[in-house]
Amino acid sequence: MDLVKRIEQALGAAVAGAQRPQAPPQLASALHYAVFPGGARIRPRLCLAVARACGDDRPALADAAAAAIELLHCASLVHDDLPCFDDAEMRRGKLAVHRAFGEPLAVLTGDALIVLAFETLAKGSALAPKRLGGLVSIVARSVGAPNGIVAGQAWECEPNVNLSDYQRAKTGSLFAAATIAGAAAAGADFAPWEALGERLGEAYQVADDLHDIAAHADELGKPVGRDAALGRPNAAAELGVSGAIERLKHLVSAAVDAVPACSGAAELKSLVIAESRRFLPKELARLAA
Amino acid sequence: MDLVKRIEQALGAAVAGAQRPQAPPQLASALHYAVFPGGARIRPRLCLAVARACGDDRPALADAAAAAIELLHCASLVHDDLPCFDDAEMRRGKLAVHRAFGEPLAVLTGDALIVLAFETLAKGSALAPKRLGGLVSIVARSVGAPNGIVAGQAWECEPNVNLSDYQRAKTGSLFAAATIAGAAAAGADFAPWEALGERLGEAYQVADDLHDIAAHADELGKPVGRDAALGRPNAAAELGVSGAIERLKHLVSAAVDAVPACSGAAELKSLVIAESRRFLPKELARLAA
Repeated sequence: MDLVKRIEQALGAAVAGAQRPQAPPQLASALHYAVFPGGARIRPRLCLAVARACGDDRPALADAAAAAIELLHCASLVHDDLPCFDDAEMRRGKLAVHRAFGEPLAVLTGDALIVLAFETLAKGSALAPKRLGGLVSIVARSVGAPNGIVAGQAWECEPNVNLSDYQRAKTGSLFAAATIAGAAAAGADFAPWEALGERLGEAYQVADDLHDIAAHADELGKPVGRDAALGRPNAAAELGVSGAIERLKHLVSAAVDAVPACSGAAELKSLVIAESRRFLPKELARLAA
Repeated sequence: MDLVKRIEQALGAAVAGAQRPQAPPQLASALHYAVFPGGARIRPRLCLAVARACGDDRPALADAAAAAIELLHCASLVHDDLPCFDDAEMRRGKLAVHRAFGEPLAVLTGDALIVLAFETLAKGSALAPKRLGGLVSIVARSVGAPNGIVAGQAWECEPNVNLSDYQRAKTGSLFAAATIAGAAAAGADFAPWEALGERLGEAYQVADDLHDIAAHADELGKPVGRDAALGRPNAAAELGVSGAIERLKHLVSAAVDAVPACSGAAELKSLVIAESRRFLPKELARLAA
Protein backbone atom coordinates (compact mmCIF):
# COMPACT_ATOMS: atom_id res chain seq x y z
CA MET A 1 0.00 0.00 0.00
CA ASP A 2 1.37 3.46 -0.71
CA LEU A 3 2.30 5.73 2.15
CA VAL A 4 -0.50 8.25 1.65
CA LYS A 5 -3.15 5.54 1.77
CA ARG A 6 -1.68 4.06 4.95
CA ILE A 7 -1.68 7.49 6.60
CA GLU A 8 -5.26 8.35 5.67
CA GLN A 9 -6.44 4.92 6.83
CA ALA A 10 -4.63 5.22 10.16
CA LEU A 11 -5.95 8.74 10.73
CA GLY A 12 -9.46 7.67 9.72
CA ALA A 13 -9.45 4.79 12.19
CA ALA A 14 -8.12 6.98 15.01
CA VAL A 15 -10.67 9.75 14.50
CA ALA A 16 -13.52 7.25 14.08
CA GLY A 17 -12.62 5.79 17.48
CA ALA A 18 -13.00 9.21 19.09
CA GLN A 19 -16.31 9.82 17.31
CA ARG A 20 -18.19 6.79 18.57
CA PRO A 21 -21.91 7.43 19.22
CA GLN A 22 -21.45 8.47 22.85
CA ALA A 23 -19.36 11.50 21.76
CA PRO A 24 -20.87 14.98 21.94
CA PRO A 25 -21.94 15.57 18.31
CA GLN A 26 -20.20 18.91 17.74
CA LEU A 27 -16.92 17.69 19.22
CA ALA A 28 -17.10 14.60 17.01
CA SER A 29 -17.61 16.82 13.93
CA ALA A 30 -14.86 19.23 14.91
CA LEU A 31 -12.35 16.40 15.38
CA HIS A 32 -12.97 15.18 11.84
CA TYR A 33 -12.98 18.73 10.46
CA ALA A 34 -9.57 19.45 12.03
CA VAL A 35 -7.93 16.37 10.48
CA PHE A 36 -9.68 15.98 7.07
CA PRO A 37 -9.01 16.89 4.36
CA GLY A 38 -5.39 17.19 5.32
CA GLY A 39 -2.55 19.36 4.14
CA ALA A 40 0.49 17.77 2.55
CA ARG A 41 0.87 15.24 5.43
CA ILE A 42 4.62 15.86 5.15
CA ARG A 43 5.51 14.70 8.67
CA PRO A 44 3.68 11.36 8.64
CA ARG A 45 4.99 10.58 5.14
CA LEU A 46 8.49 11.25 6.38
CA CYS A 47 7.85 8.99 9.37
CA LEU A 48 6.64 6.09 7.23
CA ALA A 49 9.42 6.60 4.67
CA VAL A 50 12.02 6.25 7.42
CA ALA A 51 10.24 3.19 8.87
CA ARG A 52 10.31 1.62 5.39
CA ALA A 53 13.99 2.45 4.96
CA CYS A 54 14.58 0.62 8.27
CA GLY A 55 12.69 -2.52 7.24
CA ASP A 56 9.22 -1.66 8.60
CA ASP A 57 8.82 -4.94 10.47
CA ARG A 58 5.85 -3.64 12.50
CA PRO A 59 3.77 -1.66 10.01
CA ALA A 60 0.84 -1.20 12.43
CA LEU A 61 3.16 0.55 14.86
CA ALA A 62 4.71 2.71 12.12
CA ASP A 63 1.21 3.70 10.97
CA ALA A 64 0.31 4.58 14.56
CA ALA A 65 3.46 6.69 14.96
CA ALA A 66 2.76 8.53 11.69
CA ALA A 67 -0.87 9.13 12.65
CA ALA A 68 0.09 10.32 16.15
CA ILE A 69 2.51 12.86 14.71
CA GLU A 70 -0.08 14.19 12.27
CA LEU A 71 -2.77 14.36 14.99
CA LEU A 72 -0.40 16.44 17.12
CA HIS A 73 0.37 18.68 14.15
CA CYS A 74 -3.38 19.20 13.60
CA ALA A 75 -3.85 19.93 17.32
CA SER A 76 -1.16 22.58 17.18
CA LEU A 77 -2.81 24.24 14.16
CA VAL A 78 -6.20 24.33 15.91
CA HIS A 79 -4.75 25.94 19.05
CA ASP A 80 -2.38 28.28 17.15
CA ASP A 81 -5.38 29.65 15.22
CA LEU A 82 -7.25 30.60 18.45
CA PRO A 83 -8.08 34.28 19.01
CA CYS A 84 -5.49 34.55 21.80
CA PHE A 85 -2.72 33.52 19.35
CA ASP A 86 -2.95 34.15 15.58
CA ASP A 87 -6.73 34.66 15.49
CA ALA A 88 -6.62 33.07 12.03
CA GLU A 89 -9.81 33.06 10.02
CA MET A 90 -8.81 30.41 7.47
CA ARG A 91 -6.84 27.17 7.57
CA ARG A 92 -6.29 24.70 4.70
CA GLY A 93 -8.71 26.67 2.53
CA LYS A 94 -11.65 26.60 4.92
CA LEU A 95 -12.70 28.34 8.14
CA ALA A 96 -10.39 27.69 11.08
CA VAL A 97 -11.94 25.39 13.72
CA HIS A 98 -12.66 28.24 16.16
CA ARG A 99 -14.51 30.12 13.42
CA ALA A 100 -16.48 27.07 12.31
CA PHE A 101 -17.31 25.61 15.77
CA GLY A 102 -16.58 28.38 18.27
CA GLU A 103 -13.71 28.91 20.64
CA PRO A 104 -14.69 26.42 23.39
CA LEU A 105 -14.89 23.53 20.93
CA ALA A 106 -11.60 24.59 19.33
CA VAL A 107 -9.81 24.38 22.69
CA LEU A 108 -11.40 20.98 23.36
CA THR A 109 -10.67 19.69 19.85
CA GLY A 110 -6.97 20.44 20.27
CA ASP A 111 -6.97 18.77 23.69
CA ALA A 112 -8.77 15.69 22.38
CA LEU A 113 -6.37 15.37 19.43
CA ILE A 114 -3.36 15.44 21.77
CA VAL A 115 -4.88 12.67 23.87
CA LEU A 116 -5.88 10.71 20.76
CA ALA A 117 -2.28 10.78 19.51
CA PHE A 118 -1.05 8.88 22.57
CA GLU A 119 -4.05 6.54 22.58
CA THR A 120 -3.27 5.72 18.93
CA LEU A 121 0.35 4.89 19.76
CA ALA A 122 -0.79 2.54 22.53
CA LYS A 123 -3.25 0.76 20.24
CA GLY A 124 -0.64 0.34 17.51
CA SER A 125 1.86 -1.24 19.90
CA ALA A 126 -0.11 -4.44 20.59
CA LEU A 127 2.40 -6.61 18.69
CA ALA A 128 5.49 -4.69 19.82
CA PRO A 129 4.79 -3.57 23.40
CA LYS A 130 8.44 -3.02 24.26
CA ARG A 131 8.73 -0.28 21.64
CA LEU A 132 5.89 1.80 23.11
CA GLY A 133 7.84 3.51 25.91
CA GLY A 134 10.45 4.87 23.50
CA LEU A 135 7.82 6.08 21.06
CA VAL A 136 5.72 7.83 23.71
CA SER A 137 8.86 9.58 25.00
CA ILE A 138 9.99 10.64 21.50
CA VAL A 139 6.59 12.00 20.56
CA ALA A 140 5.97 13.69 23.93
CA ARG A 141 9.36 15.41 23.89
CA SER A 142 8.63 16.86 20.46
CA VAL A 143 5.35 18.41 21.59
CA GLY A 144 5.67 19.36 25.26
CA ALA A 145 7.99 21.43 27.45
CA PRO A 146 10.87 22.27 27.52
CA ASN A 147 11.66 21.78 23.80
CA GLY A 148 8.57 20.81 21.84
CA ILE A 149 5.92 22.65 19.82
CA VAL A 150 4.12 23.96 22.90
CA ALA A 151 7.39 25.45 24.15
CA GLY A 152 7.98 26.95 20.69
CA GLN A 153 4.61 28.64 20.80
CA ALA A 154 5.30 29.82 24.37
CA TRP A 155 8.48 31.58 23.20
CA GLU A 156 6.11 33.96 21.37
CA CYS A 157 4.98 35.14 24.83
CA GLU A 158 8.54 36.00 25.94
CA PRO A 159 10.17 39.43 25.59
CA ASN A 160 13.56 37.92 24.65
CA VAL A 161 13.64 35.06 22.21
CA ASN A 162 16.53 33.06 20.84
CA LEU A 163 15.43 32.66 17.21
CA SER A 164 17.01 29.27 16.59
CA ASP A 165 15.63 27.82 19.86
CA TYR A 166 12.23 29.15 18.88
CA GLN A 167 12.24 27.69 15.37
CA ARG A 168 13.73 24.38 16.47
CA ALA A 169 10.97 23.96 19.04
CA LYS A 170 8.10 25.32 16.96
CA THR A 171 8.86 23.53 13.68
CA GLY A 172 11.97 21.36 13.89
CA SER A 173 10.91 19.26 16.87
CA LEU A 174 8.05 17.49 15.10
CA PHE A 175 10.12 16.84 11.97
CA ALA A 176 12.83 15.30 14.14
CA ALA A 177 10.16 13.23 15.92
CA ALA A 178 8.90 12.02 12.54
CA THR A 179 12.26 10.53 11.52
CA ILE A 180 13.19 9.24 14.99
CA ALA A 181 9.76 7.70 15.57
CA GLY A 182 9.80 6.07 12.12
CA ALA A 183 13.07 4.35 12.99
CA ALA A 184 11.93 3.46 16.52
CA ALA A 185 8.66 1.96 15.24
CA ALA A 186 10.73 -0.32 12.98
CA GLY A 187 12.95 -1.37 15.88
CA ALA A 188 16.04 0.41 14.54
CA ASP A 189 18.63 2.38 16.51
CA PHE A 190 16.89 5.73 16.29
CA ALA A 191 19.44 8.31 17.50
CA PRO A 192 21.21 8.58 14.09
CA TRP A 193 17.91 9.63 12.49
CA GLU A 194 17.58 12.91 14.37
CA ALA A 195 19.81 14.97 12.04
CA LEU A 196 17.71 14.16 8.96
CA GLY A 197 14.55 15.39 10.68
CA GLU A 198 16.24 18.52 12.02
CA ARG A 199 17.63 19.57 8.61
CA LEU A 200 14.26 18.96 6.94
CA GLY A 201 12.55 20.94 9.68
CA GLU A 202 14.87 23.87 9.04
CA ALA A 203 14.31 23.57 5.29
CA TYR A 204 10.55 23.50 5.83
CA GLN A 205 10.78 26.63 7.98
CA VAL A 206 12.62 28.50 5.20
CA ALA A 207 10.05 27.29 2.67
CA ASP A 208 7.25 28.43 4.98
CA ASP A 209 8.88 31.84 5.20
CA LEU A 210 9.00 31.96 1.39
CA HIS A 211 5.32 31.00 1.26
CA ASP A 212 4.47 33.72 3.71
CA ILE A 213 5.95 36.31 1.40
CA ALA A 214 5.43 34.86 -2.07
CA ALA A 215 2.34 32.70 -2.20
CA HIS A 216 -1.17 33.73 -3.03
CA ALA A 217 -3.75 33.35 -0.31
CA ASP A 218 -5.78 30.87 -2.32
CA GLU A 219 -2.83 28.53 -2.78
CA LEU A 220 -1.78 28.41 0.85
CA GLY A 221 -5.27 28.65 2.32
CA LYS A 222 -4.27 31.30 4.84
CA PRO A 223 -3.56 35.03 4.60
CA VAL A 224 0.00 35.82 3.50
CA GLY A 225 2.48 38.29 4.86
CA ARG A 226 1.34 37.37 8.36
CA ASP A 227 4.89 37.11 9.74
CA ALA A 228 5.50 40.77 8.97
CA ALA A 229 2.13 41.72 10.45
CA LEU A 230 2.93 39.79 13.65
CA GLY A 231 6.55 40.97 13.83
CA ARG A 232 7.92 37.46 13.40
CA PRO A 233 11.33 36.71 11.88
CA ASN A 234 11.26 35.53 8.26
CA ALA A 235 14.21 34.07 6.31
CA ALA A 236 12.97 35.42 2.98
CA ALA A 237 12.70 38.90 4.44
CA GLU A 238 16.22 38.61 5.89
CA LEU A 239 18.02 36.90 2.99
CA GLY A 240 15.85 37.95 0.06
CA VAL A 241 13.90 35.43 -2.00
CA SER A 242 16.88 34.06 -3.94
CA GLY A 243 19.05 33.98 -0.80
CA ALA A 244 16.36 32.03 1.00
CA ILE A 245 16.07 29.59 -1.91
CA GLU A 246 19.86 29.02 -1.77
CA ARG A 247 19.59 28.36 1.97
CA LEU A 248 16.77 25.90 1.35
CA LYS A 249 18.80 24.00 -1.25
CA HIS A 250 21.76 23.84 1.15
CA LEU A 251 19.55 22.44 3.92
CA VAL A 252 17.98 19.79 1.66
CA SER A 253 21.43 18.70 0.57
CA ALA A 254 22.50 18.48 4.24
CA ALA A 255 19.38 16.42 4.93
CA VAL A 256 20.28 13.97 2.16
CA ASP A 257 23.80 13.64 3.57
CA ALA A 258 22.29 12.96 7.01
CA VAL A 259 20.43 9.80 5.93
CA PRO A 260 22.11 7.02 7.95
CA ALA A 261 23.32 3.84 6.28
CA CYS A 262 20.37 1.44 5.99
CA SER A 263 18.82 -0.98 3.52
CA GLY A 264 16.55 1.67 1.98
CA ALA A 265 18.95 4.65 2.05
CA ALA A 266 19.08 5.29 -1.72
CA GLU A 267 15.30 5.26 -2.13
CA LEU A 268 14.87 7.51 0.89
CA LYS A 269 17.39 10.05 -0.42
CA SER A 270 15.51 10.31 -3.73
CA LEU A 271 12.26 10.74 -1.81
CA VAL A 272 13.71 13.53 0.35
CA ILE A 273 14.79 15.44 -2.76
CA ALA A 274 11.43 14.96 -4.49
CA GLU A 275 9.45 15.88 -1.38
CA SER A 276 11.43 18.97 -0.60
CA ARG A 277 10.57 20.37 -4.05
CA ARG A 278 6.95 20.31 -2.91
CA PHE A 279 7.80 22.54 0.07
CA LEU A 280 8.11 25.53 -2.26
CA PRO A 281 5.38 27.76 -3.65
CA LYS A 282 4.72 26.62 -7.23
CA GLU A 283 5.91 29.84 -8.81
CA LEU A 284 9.26 29.57 -6.98
CA ALA A 285 9.89 25.86 -7.51
CA ARG A 286 11.37 26.39 -10.99
CA LEU A 287 13.89 28.89 -9.58
CA ALA A 288 15.20 26.20 -7.23
CA ALA A 289 15.44 23.47 -9.89
CA MET B 1 6.64 6.41 52.43
CA ASP B 2 3.11 7.74 52.82
CA LEU B 3 0.95 8.24 49.77
CA VAL B 4 0.91 12.03 49.86
CA LYS B 5 4.71 12.19 49.91
CA ARG B 6 4.97 9.79 46.99
CA ILE B 7 2.52 11.86 44.97
CA GLU B 8 4.22 15.19 45.64
CA GLN B 9 7.61 13.68 44.79
CA ALA B 10 6.35 12.16 41.55
CA LEU B 11 4.64 15.41 40.53
CA GLY B 12 7.72 17.42 41.47
CA ALA B 13 9.99 15.25 39.33
CA ALA B 14 7.61 15.39 36.37
CA VAL B 15 7.23 19.17 36.47
CA ALA B 16 10.96 19.69 37.00
CA GLY B 17 11.62 17.70 33.83
CA ALA B 18 9.41 20.04 31.84
CA GLN B 19 11.07 23.10 33.40
CA ARG B 20 14.65 22.36 32.38
CA PRO B 21 16.69 25.47 31.50
CA GLN B 22 15.78 25.45 27.80
CA ALA B 23 12.09 26.00 28.64
CA PRO B 24 10.50 29.40 28.00
CA PRO B 25 10.61 30.98 31.51
CA GLN B 26 6.94 31.95 31.79
CA LEU B 27 5.73 28.56 30.60
CA ALA B 28 8.04 26.90 33.14
CA SER B 29 6.58 29.07 35.92
CA ALA B 30 3.01 28.52 34.81
CA LEU B 31 3.45 24.73 34.78
CA HIS B 32 4.61 24.80 38.40
CA TYR B 33 1.90 27.28 39.38
CA ALA B 34 -0.82 25.05 37.91
CA VAL B 35 0.28 21.97 39.87
CA PHE B 36 1.56 23.36 43.21
CA PRO B 37 0.32 23.77 45.84
CA GLY B 38 -2.28 21.17 45.00
CA GLY B 39 -5.84 20.63 46.10
CA ALA B 40 -6.76 17.48 48.00
CA ARG B 41 -5.00 15.21 45.42
CA ILE B 42 -7.98 12.87 45.81
CA ARG B 43 -7.55 11.07 42.47
CA PRO B 44 -3.84 10.23 42.78
CA ARG B 45 -4.30 9.12 46.41
CA LEU B 46 -7.08 6.82 45.28
CA CYS B 47 -4.82 5.48 42.52
CA LEU B 48 -1.98 4.70 44.91
CA ALA B 49 -4.31 3.25 47.53
CA VAL B 50 -5.66 0.79 44.96
CA ALA B 51 -2.13 -0.07 43.77
CA ARG B 52 -1.19 -0.76 47.38
CA ALA B 53 -4.28 -2.93 47.91
CA CYS B 54 -3.15 -4.92 44.84
CA GLY B 55 0.40 -5.49 46.13
CA ASP B 56 2.12 -2.48 44.51
CA ASP B 57 4.93 -4.56 42.98
CA ARG B 58 6.05 -1.70 40.68
CA PRO B 59 5.83 1.42 42.84
CA ALA B 60 7.57 3.63 40.24
CA LEU B 61 4.83 2.80 37.75
CA ALA B 62 2.08 3.36 40.31
CA ASP B 63 3.62 6.73 41.18
CA ALA B 64 3.72 7.61 37.48
CA ALA B 65 0.08 6.62 37.01
CA ALA B 66 -0.97 8.70 40.02
CA ALA B 67 1.05 11.69 38.83
CA ALA B 68 -0.31 11.39 35.27
CA ILE B 69 -3.89 11.42 36.54
CA GLU B 70 -3.26 14.49 38.71
CA LEU B 71 -1.46 16.31 35.85
CA LEU B 72 -4.48 15.69 33.62
CA HIS B 73 -6.80 16.92 36.36
CA CYS B 74 -4.70 20.10 36.68
CA ALA B 75 -4.74 20.55 32.88
CA SER B 76 -8.52 20.31 32.86
CA LEU B 77 -8.80 22.95 35.60
CA VAL B 78 -6.53 25.35 33.69
CA HIS B 79 -8.53 25.00 30.48
CA ASP B 80 -11.95 25.00 32.22
CA ASP B 81 -11.05 28.31 33.85
CA LEU B 82 -10.37 30.01 30.47
CA PRO B 83 -12.50 32.98 29.46
CA CYS B 84 -14.31 30.94 26.78
CA PHE B 85 -15.50 28.47 29.46
CA ASP B 86 -15.99 29.45 33.12
CA ASP B 87 -13.86 32.61 33.00
CA ALA B 88 -12.90 31.85 36.59
CA GLU B 89 -10.87 34.43 38.44
CA MET B 90 -9.70 32.22 41.31
CA ARG B 91 -8.61 28.59 41.65
CA ARG B 92 -7.28 26.87 44.77
CA GLY B 93 -7.23 30.20 46.62
CA LYS B 94 -5.10 32.09 44.10
CA LEU B 95 -5.53 33.67 40.68
CA ALA B 96 -6.45 31.20 37.93
CA VAL B 97 -3.59 30.54 35.48
CA HIS B 98 -5.09 32.69 32.72
CA ARG B 99 -5.41 35.60 35.17
CA ALA B 100 -1.87 35.18 36.48
CA PHE B 101 -0.06 34.45 33.17
CA GLY B 102 -2.48 35.48 30.42
CA GLU B 103 -4.69 33.44 28.15
CA PRO B 104 -2.05 32.21 25.64
CA LEU B 105 0.11 30.73 28.39
CA ALA B 106 -2.95 29.16 30.02
CA VAL B 107 -3.83 27.33 26.79
CA LEU B 108 -0.21 26.18 26.42
CA THR B 109 0.10 25.17 30.08
CA GLY B 110 -2.91 22.88 29.75
CA ASP B 111 -1.50 21.40 26.54
CA ALA B 112 1.93 20.84 28.07
CA LEU B 113 0.42 19.17 31.16
CA ILE B 114 -1.53 16.72 28.98
CA VAL B 115 1.65 15.79 27.11
CA LEU B 116 3.61 15.58 30.37
CA ALA B 117 1.10 13.08 31.77
CA PHE B 118 1.85 10.58 29.00
CA GLU B 119 5.58 11.26 29.11
CA THR B 120 5.49 10.54 32.85
CA LEU B 121 3.74 7.22 32.29
CA ALA B 122 6.38 6.19 29.74
CA LYS B 123 9.23 7.10 32.09
CA GLY B 124 7.66 5.18 34.95
CA SER B 125 7.29 2.02 32.89
CA ALA B 126 11.01 1.31 32.47
CA LEU B 127 10.86 -1.78 34.71
CA ALA B 128 7.43 -2.94 33.51
CA PRO B 129 7.24 -2.06 29.80
CA LYS B 130 4.42 -4.50 29.06
CA ARG B 131 2.07 -2.63 31.39
CA LEU B 132 2.48 0.70 29.57
CA GLY B 133 0.05 0.08 26.70
CA GLY B 134 -2.82 -0.70 29.05
CA LEU B 135 -2.08 2.32 31.23
CA VAL B 136 -1.85 4.76 28.31
CA SER B 137 -5.19 3.44 27.00
CA ILE B 138 -6.89 3.66 30.40
CA VAL B 139 -5.69 7.19 31.02
CA ALA B 140 -6.36 8.42 27.46
CA ARG B 141 -9.90 7.03 27.49
CA SER B 142 -10.66 8.91 30.70
CA VAL B 143 -9.56 12.25 29.25
CA GLY B 144 -10.31 12.24 25.52
CA ALA B 145 -13.28 11.65 23.23
CA PRO B 146 -15.82 10.05 23.20
CA ASN B 147 -16.18 9.54 27.00
CA GLY B 148 -13.47 11.41 28.89
CA ILE B 149 -13.18 14.81 30.58
CA VAL B 150 -12.80 16.67 27.29
CA ALA B 151 -16.03 15.10 26.04
CA GLY B 152 -17.70 16.02 29.33
CA GLN B 153 -16.70 19.64 28.89
CA ALA B 154 -17.87 19.52 25.25
CA TRP B 155 -21.36 18.46 26.38
CA GLU B 156 -21.63 21.97 27.83
CA CYS B 157 -21.59 23.22 24.21
CA GLU B 158 -24.55 21.04 23.20
CA PRO B 159 -28.21 22.13 23.26
CA ASN B 160 -29.39 18.70 24.51
CA VAL B 161 -27.44 17.02 27.24
CA ASN B 162 -27.96 13.71 28.98
CA LEU B 163 -27.10 14.65 32.55
CA SER B 164 -25.66 11.32 33.61
CA ASP B 165 -23.51 11.01 30.45
CA TYR B 166 -22.26 14.52 31.12
CA GLN B 167 -21.35 13.93 34.77
CA ARG B 168 -19.85 10.51 34.11
CA ALA B 169 -17.55 12.00 31.46
CA LYS B 170 -16.74 15.26 33.23
CA THR B 171 -16.09 13.86 36.73
CA GLY B 172 -16.56 10.10 36.89
CA SER B 173 -14.14 9.18 34.12
CA LEU B 174 -11.01 10.33 35.93
CA PHE B 175 -12.06 8.70 39.21
CA ALA B 176 -12.61 5.43 37.33
CA ALA B 177 -9.21 5.87 35.67
CA ALA B 178 -7.64 6.37 39.10
CA THR B 179 -8.83 3.01 40.44
CA ILE B 180 -8.31 1.08 37.18
CA ALA B 181 -4.84 2.54 36.60
CA GLY B 182 -3.82 1.81 40.20
CA ALA B 183 -4.69 -1.85 39.70
CA ALA B 184 -3.09 -1.97 36.22
CA ALA B 185 0.13 -0.40 37.50
CA ALA B 186 0.33 -3.19 40.09
CA GLY B 187 -0.23 -5.83 37.42
CA ALA B 188 -3.68 -6.83 38.72
CA ASP B 189 -6.77 -7.65 36.69
CA PHE B 190 -8.12 -4.12 36.46
CA ALA B 191 -11.67 -4.45 35.09
CA PRO B 192 -13.22 -5.22 38.53
CA TRP B 193 -11.87 -1.90 39.84
CA GLU B 194 -13.99 0.32 37.62
CA ALA B 195 -17.13 0.27 39.80
CA LEU B 196 -15.26 1.63 42.85
CA GLY B 197 -14.00 4.61 40.85
CA GLU B 198 -17.38 5.27 39.29
CA ARG B 199 -19.25 5.29 42.61
CA LEU B 200 -16.62 7.57 44.18
CA GLY B 201 -16.82 9.87 41.15
CA GLU B 202 -20.57 10.15 41.58
CA ALA B 203 -20.14 10.76 45.31
CA TYR B 204 -17.58 13.45 44.61
CA GLN B 205 -19.95 15.11 42.15
CA VAL B 206 -22.69 15.27 44.80
CA ALA B 207 -20.18 16.66 47.31
CA ASP B 208 -19.05 19.24 44.76
CA ASP B 209 -22.67 20.27 44.24
CA LEU B 210 -23.02 20.66 48.03
CA HIS B 211 -19.85 22.77 48.08
CA ASP B 212 -21.20 24.94 45.32
CA ILE B 213 -24.23 25.79 47.41
CA ALA B 214 -22.98 25.59 50.97
CA ALA B 215 -19.31 26.48 51.18
CA HIS B 216 -17.74 29.83 51.74
CA ALA B 217 -15.63 31.24 48.93
CA ASP B 218 -12.52 31.36 51.10
CA GLU B 219 -12.73 27.67 51.95
CA LEU B 220 -13.19 26.40 48.41
CA GLY B 221 -10.96 28.98 46.73
CA LYS B 222 -13.51 29.72 44.02
CA PRO B 223 -16.75 31.67 43.88
CA VAL B 224 -19.78 29.69 45.08
CA GLY B 225 -23.20 29.31 43.58
CA ARG B 226 -21.57 29.15 40.14
CA ASP B 227 -23.70 26.20 38.98
CA ALA B 228 -26.85 28.25 39.39
CA ALA B 229 -25.24 31.22 37.65
CA LEU B 230 -24.20 29.01 34.72
CA GLY B 231 -27.48 27.08 34.59
CA ARG B 232 -25.82 23.78 35.48
CA PRO B 233 -27.62 20.94 37.25
CA ASN B 234 -26.87 20.59 40.96
CA ALA B 235 -27.83 17.65 43.19
CA ALA B 236 -28.17 19.82 46.30
CA ALA B 237 -30.50 22.17 44.46
CA GLU B 238 -32.58 19.21 43.24
CA LEU B 239 -32.64 17.05 46.39
CA GLY B 240 -32.10 19.68 49.09
CA VAL B 241 -29.02 19.68 51.30
CA SER B 242 -30.07 16.77 53.50
CA GLY B 243 -31.32 14.75 50.51
CA ALA B 244 -27.97 15.27 48.79
CA ILE B 245 -26.11 14.20 51.92
CA GLU B 246 -28.20 10.99 52.03
CA ARG B 247 -27.37 10.35 48.38
CA LEU B 248 -23.70 10.89 49.12
CA LYS B 249 -23.77 8.40 52.01
CA HIS B 250 -25.50 5.85 49.80
CA LEU B 251 -22.86 6.26 47.06
CA VAL B 252 -19.96 5.92 49.51
CA SER B 253 -21.51 2.76 50.89
CA ALA B 254 -21.90 1.42 47.32
CA ALA B 255 -18.24 2.30 46.69
CA VAL B 256 -17.14 0.33 49.76
CA ASP B 257 -19.19 -2.66 48.57
CA ALA B 258 -17.53 -2.37 45.15
CA VAL B 259 -13.99 -2.95 46.47
CA PRO B 260 -12.94 -6.27 44.85
CA ALA B 261 -11.47 -9.10 46.91
CA CYS B 262 -7.74 -8.44 47.32
CA SER B 263 -5.04 -8.63 49.98
CA GLY B 264 -5.56 -5.03 51.07
CA ALA B 265 -9.36 -4.83 50.81
CA ALA B 266 -10.09 -4.11 54.47
CA GLU B 267 -7.58 -1.28 54.72
CA LEU B 268 -8.81 0.20 51.45
CA LYS B 269 -12.44 0.15 52.60
CA SER B 270 -11.54 2.08 55.76
CA LEU B 271 -9.61 4.56 53.66
CA VAL B 272 -12.54 5.11 51.28
CA ILE B 273 -14.82 5.90 54.22
CA ALA B 274 -12.30 8.25 55.81
CA GLU B 275 -11.51 10.01 52.54
CA SER B 276 -15.10 10.49 51.52
CA ARG B 277 -15.71 12.42 54.75
CA ARG B 278 -13.21 14.94 53.44
CA PHE B 279 -15.29 15.46 50.30
CA LEU B 280 -17.83 17.44 52.30
CA PRO B 281 -17.71 21.10 53.31
CA LYS B 282 -16.58 21.21 56.95
CA GLU B 283 -19.84 22.63 58.25
CA LEU B 284 -21.79 19.77 56.63
CA ALA B 285 -19.48 16.91 57.59
CA ARG B 286 -21.02 16.53 61.07
CA LEU B 287 -24.49 16.17 59.53
CA ALA B 288 -23.26 13.17 57.55
CA ALA B 289 -21.48 11.48 60.47
